[in-house]
Amino acid sequence: MHKPQNKGVTGRELGRVLFSPQSIAIVGASDDLSKTAARPLQYLRLAGYGGRIYPVNPRRETVLDSPCWPSIAALPEKPDHAYIVTPTSGILAAVEECGRAGIPAATILGNGFSESGAEGVERERELVATARRWGVRLVGPSSLGVVNLREGVMITANAAFAEPGLPKGQIFVASQSGSMIGALVSRGKALGTGFASLVSVGNEADLCVGEICEAVLDDPDVDGFLLFLETLRHADRLRAFASEAAKRGKPVLAYKLGRSSEARELAQSHTGALAGEDDIAQAFFADCGIGRVETLEGLLEGLPLLKRIPLGAVRGRKPTVGVVTTTGGGAAMVVDQLAVRGVTTVAPSDETLGRFAAAGISVDGARIVDLTLTGTRYDVMKAALDVMLTAPEYDMVIAVVGSSARFQPQLAVRPVIDSAGAAKPLAAFLVPEAGEALQHLRATGIPAFRTPEACADVVAAAFGRRMPKPIVSRAGDFGPPRLLDEAASYARLETVGLPCAPRCIVERGKPIPDLPTDDFPVALKILSDAVAHKSDIGGVVLGIPDAAALRRAAEAMFASIRLDDGRPVDRLLAQPMQRGLGEALVGYRVDPDVGPIVLVAAGGLLTEIYADRSLRLAPVDLDTAREMVREVKAFRALDGYRGKAKGDLEALAEAVVRLSQLAEQADVAEAEINPLIIRQEGEGVVAVDAVVTLSTGGPA
Amino acid sequence: MHKPQNKGVTGRELGRVLFSPQSIAIVGASDDLSKTAARPLQYLRLAGYGGRIYPVNPRRETVLDSPCWPSIAALPEKPDHAYIVTPTSGILAAVEECGRAGIPAATILGNGFSESGAEGVERERELVATARRWGVRLVGPSSLGVVNLREGVMITANAAFAEPGLPKGQIFVASQSGSMIGALVSRGKALGTGFASLVSVGNEADLCVGEICEAVLDDPDVDGFLLFLETLRHADRLRAFASEAAKRGKPVLAYKLGRSSEARELAQSHTGALAGEDDIAQAFFADCGIGRVETLEGLLEGLPLLKRIPLGAVRGRKPTVGVVTTTGGGAAMVVDQLAVRGVTTVAPSDETLGRFAAAGISVDGARIVDLTLTGTRYDVMKAALDVMLTAPEYDMVIAVVGSSARFQPQLAVRPVIDSAGAAKPLAAFLVPEAGEALQHLRATGIPAFRTPEACADVVAAAFGRRMPKPIVSRAGDFGPPRLLDEAASYARLETVGLPCAPRCIVERGKPIPDLPTDDFPVALKILSDAVAHKSDIGGVVLGIPDAAALRRAAEAMFASIRLDDGRPVDRLLAQPMQRGLGEALVGYRVDPDVGPIVLVAAGGLLTEIYADRSLRLAPVDLDTAREMVREVKAFRALDGYRGKAKGDLEALAEAVVRLSQLAEQADVAEAEINPLIIRQEGEGVVAVDAVVTLSTGGPA
Repeated sequence: MHKPQNKGVTGRELGRVLFSPQSIAIVGASDDLSKTAARPLQYLRLAGYGGRIYPVNPRRETVLDSPCWPSIAALPEKPDHAYIVTPTSGILAAVEECGRAGIPAATILGNGFSESGAEGVERERELVATARRWGVRLVGPSSLGVVNLREGVMITANAAFAEPGLPKGQIFVASQSGSMIGALVSRGKALGTGFASLVSVGNEADLCVGEICEAVLDDPDVDGFLLFLETLRHADRLRAFASEAAKRGKPVLAYKLGRSSEARELAQSHTGALAGEDDIAQAFFADCGIGRVETLEGLLEGLPLLKRIPLGAVRGRKPTVGVVTTTGGGAAMVVDQLAVRGVTTVAPSDETLGRFAAAGISVDGARIVDLTLTGTRYDVMKAALDVMLTAPEYDMVIAVVGSSARFQPQLAVRPVIDSAGAAKPLAAFLVPEAGEALQHLRATGIPAFRTPEACADVVAAAFGRRMPKPIVSRAGDFGPPRLLDEAASYARLETVGLPCAPRCIVERGKPIPDLPTDDFPVALKILSDAVAHKSDIGGVVLGIPDAAALRRAAEAMFASIRLDDGRPVDRLLAQPMQRGLGEALVGYRVDPDVGPIVLVAAGGLLTEIYADRSLRLAPVDLDTAREMVREVKAFRALDGYRGKAKGDLEALAEAVVRLSQLAEQADVAEAEINPLIIRQEGEGVVAVDAVVTLSTGGPA
Repeated sequence: MHKPQNKGVTGRELGRVLFSPQSIAIVGASDDLSKTAARPLQYLRLAGYGGRIYPVNPRRETVLDSPCWPSIAALPEKPDHAYIVTPTSGILAAVEECGRAGIPAATILGNGFSESGAEGVERERELVATARRWGVRLVGPSSLGVVNLREGVMITANAAFAEPGLPKGQIFVASQSGSMIGALVSRGKALGTGFASLVSVGNEADLCVGEICEAVLDDPDVDGFLLFLETLRHADRLRAFASEAAKRGKPVLAYKLGRSSEARELAQSHTGALAGEDDIAQAFFADCGIGRVETLEGLLEGLPLLKRIPLGAVRGRKPTVGVVTTTGGGAAMVVDQLAVRGVTTVAPSDETLGRFAAAGISVDGARIVDLTLTGTRYDVMKAALDVMLTAPEYDMVIAVVGSSARFQPQLAVRPVIDSAGAAKPLAAFLVPEAGEALQHLRATGIPAFRTPEACADVVAAAFGRRMPKPIVSRAGDFGPPRLLDEAASYARLETVGLPCAPRCIVERGKPIPDLPTDDFPVALKILSDAVAHKSDIGGVVLGIPDAAALRRAAEAMFASIRLDDGRPVDRLLAQPMQRGLGEALVGYRVDPDVGPIVLVAAGGLLTEIYADRSLRLAPVDLDTAREMVREVKAFRALDGYRGKAKGDLEALAEAVVRLSQLAEQADVAEAEINPLIIRQEGEGVVAVDAVVTLSTGGPA
């Protein structure tokens, strides 16, 4: 999935020419104020950009009273960055000119490329080829810009950046939607959230979100990343970046469209990218250590909390939160929203209650620590926070502040600000409209939320992140997919230690192998690499009671069954019937977006209807597989539900681990065991049907 | 569930004394500015209340420089409304004094009543008895106030109402959380949402949300209602109010805590009220025509849209929305959020595409009508809206406005404002932070949203409302519940026409009835009104093949089975085994909160684990029952899923209708058929186990 290495700048130097260029050429700059192409020069001036600006336009001596150059070749120096704002037809030539002049990076505003049909795809291919030939790194096409607010770098035609007083900060934004960088800046301004740089990545023909973010990863002015994504295009680079970001403790928060099939279809038609199921994206983000929010406001408010909560802070259990408040109704909104997202608000332990009492704070044993009006006193709230921030039952503490946040903004949030040094993460939700108090909190880096939904959304996103695991490198493309027949599939699965049902092969014209009486009843199935759904053509007979019946069944199948191409069937598979308490579907595949994934579900119609499955990037370890099994609701029926016998869910988890290890077998494209029979606790699992698909002619 | 009729004012006169009193007594008014009891007088003065104010305090000549009266009896007139701000211990006497003086309404600030243990419950009982004796209507106890912003009526100690410039409008707010009325006012101010009156209902010891809202229903200054609810206490009054509100076209929008079990438990411990499952609340709101939002901002932004969308606008299908925009990424957020809430954004039809072309608007066939930058031109957006607002494929249209909403606030939303007269509902979502444009839209009554989540939340809430159905009145309490045995249960179910399996009774010591050969195999079950779970004590034998086996099975059961109290079993029920394609659970019960409800689910463990059921207030008509069956995901397996045979889902819907008609049999507390066997399409359904519980000694 990796692109061939580009010629051209990479890493920090890429970051520098993109976001801190010493000089910028505007290719196609217009003198007509009504034109989009006139904007970049104006915006650079407005922002007080300190570098050199070179408008390039063969038809003008000056542009907006600046001297103008007839061509890139005529420029007095080699600019760090060119913004190409010409019409589509002129873009290719402009990139080539940039290349000849040695300009290392160009941002392309125009569209009409891969987002617009076959001709556009071809145009984009040419564009990239030209850029690679000359070693020019490209942002776009269809990029609404590259902006560094701190340095006044406004390589953009987005009118949002004409606004004075845009909030500077340490957040880096990368967006697949161009208009959203403007929307995020305006919304950030209202919230007191400031930005370092923003980039609209456009079509990502050359530079993708992951590579651009990685290029600024060591910028001391950047301490966190916000991503607005429509697709998981170039997920491998995104994952590599996220992995590095995790090492540096710089949090990454993403809003990704496509929770619904409607939006996924839109993304596909809009970007030409394939769009997988949303739970694959969800697993990808979690396994990359990227927080994923579902609210727009959560995206803007979320990074301070992500900074406080380590990756993989909780494993295999729900995160627990302590909530302290002066206003029960307001706090209950947060508790409710947290709970629907799988985060539990827990009541203080007896020990904590004792410590409250010792501190002179009257608290009942309820889930919310409601200080009522006394909590508006600094000393009471501060003492309560001191107790809770050292209580082991909480993974974090949320202070829900009532009307005092509006009327005494400084005073009301002072106890929260003064408690920010605690080891345990602390956040605040303000129940009334209380902009000033929010600003106080944010100015001191305290995670603070304006709505209960954004608060719960970010808390769940923060705890949902797992520590990124090492990336299993997979070599490039293989040949066309090749289905293995059931026997060969078992053989392949047995190489990673998966328990498969015993079987023997029955061949046309040869004697049927003698089976011990104990093996009966048996199942008899056609054995062919040309059939994906054996039962659809009558190729499965179950419960054959004895050897005589087996012979009759085999003869009947040899006689009557024809494959799609009219060929008869020459081989059958006989398998002792397996009994268990339940069934699972365990699957592995190399997803076109995110790479190797493993999934587990309870097989059957209902679990399909309920979309009840758990997914991870593969391979996974046993703890992860156990988590996955716990996430599948249907398996509760095998976990002692209502006093029923327990199934061997531990063996199921082991099977998930083993199947996921196919990620290390580069020729396997896909493998599915359906069903895997789950026996009683301690008695294991066994695969009774399986199909493995190879992506090459490798070993079977 | 109705309370005995109170003495005292009701209806409009109640609304007048609560919210437009000519004179107000403040009982327990304090002269100490640091005391809560000093606030109401200050707030009334600040708000410029035009009526007469009477501080009552036996220990003072003046309060805050106003003359003060030693007792209610000493007042120079009979005030319309008393605000009792004394400590808990003085409240009862104060209410009695009010009664003696003929004051029709009192609001009680103090707490220590039913929310605080057995002693408090008894105190509240006395309080209500006293109020009823004297005909004083009570708000509270534990009420943070009664406020009419238009008339400066500040019967409140909530500091939120000390703020100048609170936004006046036509929205009435009733809240079970006292602090939330303040939070809503401050948030409304920021959003440009204004209020007529607000009430914190406290414990609802006398006046509940429903009765208070009904009292202002005909107030021309009130054109919509916002409810903040923790429980469905007094749901019958709420339903009666909602039904009247629907007749007057005044929309009601509710935010109710308790989507999670955590929050339901909180509500219970906080209010002492029982808290049912959230889907019961959801069904209640929908069947009352009350919109239910899940976001706090949706609560504040929602009413204008509810006004535009009639109750029950769509039945039995997903609502369809047309989305037009200048910014694809921003619009996609709304589409995504709508879709996860069951609202589909549909692409323009061929006819509509033709009309776009005729209007000179270039639009592809995608789900979002993306006008790109050209849409920032007034004439283009206006023409597009004209086409969409007359296109039959949309139930409503949403305009998603990009950065121009921030930079040209008037111009950007002008096409939307100029299209507001269309018959089809129109709303706007603004992608950037664009407060001024929002204010423009709101000032002209156009539904306008700040976040994609609130927008989608409100759209789903608006379309989720059904036309309220006539209320089936049910007489008061009955005796203790009494279980009917299975045979009696069938007999009762057959009175409403439910198809039940044929059966015959086998009695100890009597000959076993002759069953025709065709009836075999049969099931044999113990028949007793003392056993709820027959199989747990070995009381069910299935698949008995013939008469001899039936005799043996009956003898064995008579011999071995003992009931919990040690008694033997004297009667058995024999039933021909029934075959079908699937099973359902159909249930009816009188819910303690919301009254008669009917539900349908696919029986079995998995549907229980997935909580996959559909609920309505009972009785229901056939169209509603069909909707319910469609809402249960598991029944998709019986609806031709993947080419499988279809089950008789129409007969299942009919069974739901019939069971729901038990709502007209006042003695039935509960009835459950589990399972109801669903045969192939056209072949009906049949109950093979059932239990009916009566709430009295009525006919069996």
